[in-house]
Amino acid sequence: MARRVPLAVLLVLFLAWTARSVGPRDSGAIPPRYAEDGRLLFPEGYREWIYLSSGLGMSYSKAGGDEFTNVFVTPASYRAFLSSGKWPEQTMLVVEERASASEGSIVRGGHYQAGLAGLGVEIKDSARYPDTWAYFTFRADTASAKPAAKSACWQCHEEHGAVEHSFVQFYPTLQPVARRFGTYKAPPP
Amino acid sequence: MARRVPLAVLLVLFLAWTARSVGPRDSGAIPPRYAEDGRLLFPEGYREWIYLSSGLGMSYSKAGGDEFTNVFVTPASYRAFLSSGKWPEQTMLVVEERASASEGSIVRGGHYQAGLAGLGVEIKDSARYPDTWAYFTFRADTASAKPAAKSACWQCHEEHGAVEHSFVQFYPTLQPVARRFGTYKAPPP
Repeated sequence: MARRVPLAVLLVLFLAWTARSVGPRDSGAIPPRYAEDGRLLFPEGYREWIYLSSGLGMSYSKAGGDEFTNVFVTPASYRAFLSSGKWPEQTMLVVEERASASEGSIVRGGHYQAGLAGLGVEIKDSARYPDTWAYFTFRADTASAKPAAKSACWQCHEEHGAVEHSFVQFYPTLQPVARRFGTYKAPPP
Repeated sequence: MARRVPLAVLLVLFLAWTARSVGPRDSGAIPPRYAEDGRLLFPEGYREWIYLSSGLGMSYSKAGGDEFTNVFVTPASYRAFLSSGKWPEQTMLVVEERASASEGSIVRGGHYQAGLAGLGVEIKDSARYPDTWAYFTFRADTASAKPAAKSACWQCHEEHGAVEHSFVQFYPTLQPVARRFGTYKAPPP
């Protein structure tokens, strides 16, 4: 007959195992967090999400400016996109705006990134938002935010997003994925 | 007396748990991989590592050009840096070079990223490399590479890197970490 161990020991190990399996770094499931008054909390930790791409002078806050924008997405949504070409519910995308600098150290020309200017956050949640996608803007010191007016962000993403409300036309590693799954719509000029 | 379960069941669960704990997404330990002839293999999956920053026109392959550069580091090395201001052995940094585009869709100005031009890889491994740090260049279709000549990359990183051989002066989220730990050396002009 096999040796047996207490059920309690097994239970502890099993709980440890399942606890690991739902940790953010593992599953990548990072749902949006809200304050008690319903405002979206600043998305702490977004710099450790999956990076999609950057632009210069495409800033949301200053059209034609010289700010860098870096785009990040939660890991679980990224993986869902790779296997479907679509964004799952609870997807969060962050566009981070940073000042650009041109002088310093070995760089004689070109631009590199400096201080944080602000964040834009985009969330897909059809249960929470009647228009499915909602938009929020944060400055570096903003703790929470309420959704922006539909005319401020939603409308432009609706009209110009290559995949649902996202600007996959600017994310070179996601473009071929969306084309393969037939979810890429050529944006109007 | 407590209920008991077979040792075999416990063993299977324990192995599953330890197997999870060493997976790349979990521990972030992603050591460099080498071919049988000792050449470094293309660092597959680097787009899912931790993003550090981007530049425009700071390209290694075309000085003063208009390429974007995106820098990534393996997750375990990133976490070690956050808690020490130093890079552990086996650290791998990748600088990805991408073409920039200016026309398209809603963008009337500014620059966004397009096709992959190449990669630079930097590895810290004092057991393998007599000068501790080694450098490799890849084109998009290069399968493996041998270390670059010391004059090609090593010398410049030695002279201008703000933290060891890394250009933390261009990584705005790591700069304050290095300053806090006293590992940031002001780079010479």
